[in-house]
Amino acid sequence: MVPRYARPAMTAIWEPEARYRIWFEIEAHAAVKMGELGVVPESAGQALWDWWATDPAIDVAAIDAIEAVTKHDVIAFLDWVAQQVGPEARFMHQGMTSSDVLDTTLNVQLTKAADILLADLDALLAALRRRAEEHKYTPTIGRSHGIHAEPVTFGLKLAQAYAEFARCKARLIAARADVATCAISGAVGTFANVDPSVEEYVAWKMDLVPEPISTQVIPRDRHAMFFATLGVIASSIERLAIEVRHLQRTEVLEAEEYFSPGQKGSSAMPHKRNPVLTENLTGLARMVRAAVVPALENVALWHERDISHSSVERFIGPDATITLDFALARLTGVIDKLLVYPERMQKNLDRMGGLVHSQRVLLALTQAGLSRDESYRLVQRNAMKVWESDGQLSLLELLKADPEVAAALPAETIEEKFDLGYHYKQVDRIFDRVFAA
Amino acid sequence: MVPRYARPAMTAIWEPEARYRIWFEIEAHAAVKMGELGVVPESAGQALWDWWATDPAIDVAAIDAIEAVTKHDVIAFLDWVAQQVGPEARFMHQGMTSSDVLDTTLNVQLTKAADILLADLDALLAALRRRAEEHKYTPTIGRSHGIHAEPVTFGLKLAQAYAEFARCKARLIAARADVATCAISGAVGTFANVDPSVEEYVAWKMDLVPEPISTQVIPRDRHAMFFATLGVIASSIERLAIEVRHLQRTEVLEAEEYFSPGQKGSSAMPHKRNPVLTENLTGLARMVRAAVVPALENVALWHERDISHSSVERFIGPDATITLDFALARLTGVIDKLLVYPERMQKNLDRMGGLVHSQRVLLALTQAGLSRDESYRLVQRNAMKVWESDGQLSLLELLKADPEVAAALPAETIEEKFDLGYHYKQVDRIFDRVFAA
Amino acid sequence: MVPRYARPAMTAIWEPEARYRIWFEIEAHAAVKMGELGVVPESAGQALWDWWATDPAIDVAAIDAIEAVTKHDVIAFLDWVAQQVGPEARFMHQGMTSSDVLDTTLNVQLTKAADILLADLDALLAALRRRAEEHKYTPTIGRSHGIHAEPVTFGLKLAQAYAEFARCKARLIAARADVATCAISGAVGTFANVDPSVEEYVAWKMDLVPEPISTQVIPRDRHAMFFATLGVIASSIERLAIEVRHLQRTEVLEAEEYFSPGQKGSSAMPHKRNPVLTENLTGLARMVRAAVVPALENVALWHERDISHSSVERFIGPDATITLDFALARLTGVIDKLLVYPERMQKNLDRMGGLVHSQRVLLALTQAGLSRDESYRLVQRNAMKVWESDGQLSLLELLKADPEVAAALPAETIEEKFDLGYHYKQVDRIFDRVFAA
Amino acid sequence: MVPRYARPAMTAIWEPEARYRIWFEIEAHAAVKMGELGVVPESAGQALWDWWATDPAIDVAAIDAIEAVTKHDVIAFLDWVAQQVGPEARFMHQGMTSSDVLDTTLNVQLTKAADILLADLDALLAALRRRAEEHKYTPTIGRSHGIHAEPVTFGLKLAQAYAEFARCKARLIAARADVATCAISGAVGTFANVDPSVEEYVAWKMDLVPEPISTQVIPRDRHAMFFATLGVIASSIERLAIEVRHLQRTEVLEAEEYFSPGQKGSSAMPHKRNPVLTENLTGLARMVRAAVVPALENVALWHERDISHSSVERFIGPDATITLDFALARLTGVIDKLLVYPERMQKNLDRMGGLVHSQRVLLALTQAGLSRDESYRLVQRNAMKVWESDGQLSLLELLKADPEVAAALPAETIEEKFDLGYHYKQVDRIFDRVFAA
Repeated sequence: MVPRYARPAMTAIWEPEARYRIWFEIEAHAAVKMGELGVVPESAGQALWDWWATDPAIDVAAIDAIEAVTKHDVIAFLDWVAQQVGPEARFMHQGMTSSDVLDTTLNVQLTKAADILLADLDALLAALRRRAEEHKYTPTIGRSHGIHAEPVTFGLKLAQAYAEFARCKARLIAARADVATCAISGAVGTFANVDPSVEEYVAWKMDLVPEPISTQVIPRDRHAMFFATLGVIASSIERLAIEVRHLQRTEVLEAEEYFSPGQKGSSAMPHKRNPVLTENLTGLARMVRAAVVPALENVALWHERDISHSSVERFIGPDATITLDFALARLTGVIDKLLVYPERMQKNLDRMGGLVHSQRVLLALTQAGLSRDESYRLVQRNAMKVWESDGQLSLLELLKADPEVAAALPAETIEEKFDLGYHYKQVDRIFDRVFAA
Repeated sequence: MVPRYARPAMTAIWEPEARYRIWFEIEAHAAVKMGELGVVPESAGQALWDWWATDPAIDVAAIDAIEAVTKHDVIAFLDWVAQQVGPEARFMHQGMTSSDVLDTTLNVQLTKAADILLADLDALLAALRRRAEEHKYTPTIGRSHGIHAEPVTFGLKLAQAYAEFARCKARLIAARADVATCAISGAVGTFANVDPSVEEYVAWKMDLVPEPISTQVIPRDRHAMFFATLGVIASSIERLAIEVRHLQRTEVLEAEEYFSPGQKGSSAMPHKRNPVLTENLTGLARMVRAAVVPALENVALWHERDISHSSVERFIGPDATITLDFALARLTGVIDKLLVYPERMQKNLDRMGGLVHSQRVLLALTQAGLSRDESYRLVQRNAMKVWESDGQLSLLELLKADPEVAAALPAETIEEKFDLGYHYKQVDRIFDRVFAA
Repeated sequence: MVPRYARPAMTAIWEPEARYRIWFEIEAHAAVKMGELGVVPESAGQALWDWWATDPAIDVAAIDAIEAVTKHDVIAFLDWVAQQVGPEARFMHQGMTSSDVLDTTLNVQLTKAADILLADLDALLAALRRRAEEHKYTPTIGRSHGIHAEPVTFGLKLAQAYAEFARCKARLIAARADVATCAISGAVGTFANVDPSVEEYVAWKMDLVPEPISTQVIPRDRHAMFFATLGVIASSIERLAIEVRHLQRTEVLEAEEYFSPGQKGSSAMPHKRNPVLTENLTGLARMVRAAVVPALENVALWHERDISHSSVERFIGPDATITLDFALARLTGVIDKLLVYPERMQKNLDRMGGLVHSQRVLLALTQAGLSRDESYRLVQRNAMKVWESDGQLSLLELLKADPEVAAALPAETIEEKFDLGYHYKQVDRIFDRVFAA
Repeated sequence: MVPRYARPAMTAIWEPEARYRIWFEIEAHAAVKMGELGVVPESAGQALWDWWATDPAIDVAAIDAIEAVTKHDVIAFLDWVAQQVGPEARFMHQGMTSSDVLDTTLNVQLTKAADILLADLDALLAALRRRAEEHKYTPTIGRSHGIHAEPVTFGLKLAQAYAEFARCKARLIAARADVATCAISGAVGTFANVDPSVEEYVAWKMDLVPEPISTQVIPRDRHAMFFATLGVIASSIERLAIEVRHLQRTEVLEAEEYFSPGQKGSSAMPHKRNPVLTENLTGLARMVRAAVVPALENVALWHERDISHSSVERFIGPDATITLDFALARLTGVIDKLLVYPERMQKNLDRMGGLVHSQRVLLALTQAGLSRDESYRLVQRNAMKVWESDGQLSLLELLKADPEVAAALPAETIEEKFDLGYHYKQVDRIFDRVFAA
């Protein structure tokens, strides 16, 4: 976790104190249910919750000190709680194994993290939708291979991003469900010393579902899927970030990240307005993705479990979720305040001398009876002249003056093919597809 | 694609001829719909399908020869079809762009590949279930950290694998849906020259759904999700493969890959029976996962599209699906024919002098009123002696002879704690959870 | 391996026949040395080389047929050779293990592959150097964050690429040495049944060095380093490819991939000249990098060896080297024939109204006694006006008209700061640094 | 960075204060040289170093506060220094760009980190060598595929690890050299406003070499190579960690991680001694490797630079080096204190009824004139009986009793083949190869 790429709500999930609080709740819920079952005195769970109701501070340093001796984190925690609560606490953790607590806790943390990320996605989707509607009909050039292709609208660009992040949201909901499980199944998952109803009760209280079969640990294919999904979302962030970076290039300058008055772009070149937020997002996307391979490598635990996954999760649990939360929020800010320059978009659209309309002329020639090959040749020879003039020549004028073209198409038909509005007749329908869902 | 790790049905999906057949179908369906719309003569679609009804061979070499000149694969294909079908063919591809064909084709291939993989998973699940039922109550030691923990059954191990691959199947169904889209939206996705109803028609005919918004290309977050999901499945394969490798170790030998009579294990050591299939699966899992990162890097195309994704997909499209298909089938064979040695499992279970029952004694001591710490100390001091004797001493005898333990627990209570059956009382319930779904 | 991204010389290294030829040479060299040592009759090696001198065809199908029965590739090969050579062949492979042959063969293949890649790098370096010298003083704008910064020359861009690929060459030489080892050490690497002098002899004959300590296998950290190095080279390819893609953008158009007269850029837009080669290189770079993670995962073999690495190497051995060879050759072609447009570079350089000279003015103001902050403020307020005019206003004129600036600097001093040549005074020195080495 | 996997010396390199100290040194050295060149007053450098000689505290919070306003870290730092030093400080950073400071600083940090890692490797190598010498002739079974193969010694296992980490050290030395460069080349690397001699002077003072050609940034292929090398080292750690994990398995138990008296292995099973350190190392290896892909993705910066690499480096710079330092130290401790059980090694070696000697008999039969195939058949049919008896039958006895074997080999010759010492005759030579270098 790098503090400058972290926001407090997400970071809080991963603080030691938050972890201990979840540990306590799991143990205390389990104690209550075991009390009901008569496995431990009913007073045990009561004592735990009574103490909890006093809103006790969690003394992380004290727990750490015990762990330094026992070299076992859960035992250290139980010892500390026992010191606070008194003799009733000895009934905690009956028949349970450390992993019951640790793995269920991790899943609580991941689902809480997912909830924040889902809210982040909602905010991003809202920003994208607002700006998409705003620029639904703002003409801009569509580019394939970085080369001018045919007209689109700026709203369409944002609508595509909206649709992509809407998919990301659906995927995250699925990934959240994948890790929303609880295991209280004992040493190797056989429930030998703990009744399955304890697991069911804790799961219900912690807003999870019981893990159908665990083997001391909750299986890590669930977490692999979770982090892989974060990696896909990161790649979608990268895509939109790179779009903004391209648009802000000096020669393009169709949009810019918001530039606050006091901001200095460069220590050396005071005129510079750099797309540093989206460049930063490009890097952050790489870091969220960096969690994917270790998460995949974590799946193949030995036999019923080994602990190789644990150190990995201490890194990627916080890092991937905190970084993605920050990145989504940053991207939302970028989109929300993005400076959009429609005049410049129009200027760029016009700079190629009408080449972007060549496809329509090509089709018209084919429909007028020329072969595809012949049509292509006629359009291309004029298009090349325009291209080589760097947009100084007009494709429309050249085509009208080309005798072979003129023989096939009347001047007004050619002119008609240069109408920009023609390209936008389905924008409404596309928006319906994207935003109606 | 490495031929020895490929099976014909999956490989066939990726052959040039198969690709061209899909291209044709897309173009021909589009021509039919355009005929209905009056954009092209109705005779065009008819001519294409009439020719197709003759079951024509696809002359891959001829198409390649045209591409060598035009340096454009779709144009080469259209030219070749035009040579076969005649003048009506000039109405093909009206208002479409190459990517309409290429991207829709890729998605047809991926959904077909997913269907094979889903069938593979069904076969694996069936094998796992059969063997799990067979060994539902076969006692074996559960191991955490590679160290004996408490008893499980061999059926539970397989039930866990079943549950894991059942999740993999659900994920693959979702991933398949993610790539089951069709785009026929023209040069930059605006439908300027092709009506959206053409896309809808082709989608319906090709068993896909229309891509809500495309930008010449179908967005690659869909494919990233698909390959990431294959990577998760590969990791689950690795987990089960490593389990088998462990079980076949000389010192463990609780199960073995089936060993055919004529097979030589080693050029030098004729007695060896090596778990080469599951070792191979471990490697193949790495290769399926190797597709994940490039698929994630493919998402961030520039503007409306660039073609950097294409070369990546020429590799990972076939490689990841063919290898995963092979791996799933190989794993199914391993499980199906796995030689299981229950006597050896029992022998291993017994070799630790009863240490595996120590947890039950620990609980009994706690319930008899000793503190958790005190109970732990009593069990551990006896357990350590057994451990150091390499299983020659019996924990049961030592505990009964320990005055402090004996003071807390009567001998018969201690003996009761060494009953193996105690651990299996929830096996039925776990099986219900796993297999009822 | 994807045929369209493969060149014959590199592909040939990985053909089955080539592999068998190396196998034979290793076995025959070993037999000769064992003959010298008296372990086998001297006639054995002689018989093998006599047969080899007849330039026999390698019947791959026949060997495959034997393997189908024995399920062991090296035994199948030895059987086949024995059928050809006769009884003397039974002395082959004495005291050796399959891996002695397989691992040494892989290293022969990798060093041969490295030799081709080194030649590829030499060709690329030559092209870069030639074009760098050609454009040593061709002015162009330097860009940070995609935004105009200060002037550089096009030769400097290429000189940077030269220096980067020169480093890549040095790294590949080191990586080649890392895999240029030979192991003939027997079943678990103890030389129990084969004298170390056999290994030394075979190593010498095959142009390798003896592996100091092997454990049936040559340790895979060597190969991990090799493939990691290929991944770094791929990333350098990606960097230069992306530079070209940027330069070819419609709005920038300072350079273009060579466009052959017959080539069609798009099925729909005949005017388009797309940087498809460098986009393709971007994708190929991803694929070469995809070998890195599995190669790293291959290192941790179990005990003296397991065979999980083998399937991985069947993929990445050919794929990574063939793809990188193709990519380097393609990049060399792109650089060699790159269309460079100095007029357009100059035009772009001028389009910002002189903003690129702002840093020099800033320094001059500081040197004239103003504080850094004050100087910054003065330059920035004028720079912002130019920026907002989209280069229509001239920074030089604005500065001369700004009373506070004029108070600090005489007009001719300001003018002096707008001299382009000022930026190029160290070009010669930089070239010396890069190309002298 | 996860505190529990971090050691202070390495962590200190990455503290904000340490970074600012390096910044200062770079700026102050540059100022001195510029003073010599007459670009700034000689008093400027003097003033800076005079202040530095007072050993001033670096007020990180104050600098952060300035950055919160300027949103530029280097400017914030320069402003703060100027507040401390007074007017002379305005001559700092003349003609330099932020990246000159930032990139050179990163390389100082990485070389310092590499120095610690090299010392870590030396300590690990020393431990490996000591334990290898100690167990040079401790017999143990060599295993391929997890299956008993032929005898090795425990010293040979450690000698292989020594050789592997010696290679890692050589690679790290090369990787360190790759990042040991300094750039003080100004806005886009042209030295327009700063003389190359400043770079040379700063490089010399900071123990680096000048970057031959930079483009505002030091090229990131250098860093990619550095982190890729760390990834290879991590994989070697994983290999040795997995070896220990295997050896500690209940059924193998040939070695164990040191187990301190107070340590509790499990909250539930007090007898357990788990290889948690090496399992942890397995996970940490995954995390060090996780830096490789983002580092490779960082290479392809746009044009002269973009800042996407920066956020990645804020993570992986500290994380990969701190984690690797911790892992190497932990591994050294594991090896240093490893509990080795030679009796158990011997017991395991004997448990297969002599099967491990089968290869020697095979060779003897071949040398006695039988065909390879025939010899194989004879050995295998006896070996299989031993195998199926789980080592209760003796291969030696069976072979002597097999009439076909007996016909080919006298009994004493067969017995001779079961001599363990035979396998160790080259151990000395192998040790010479490994440790003489």
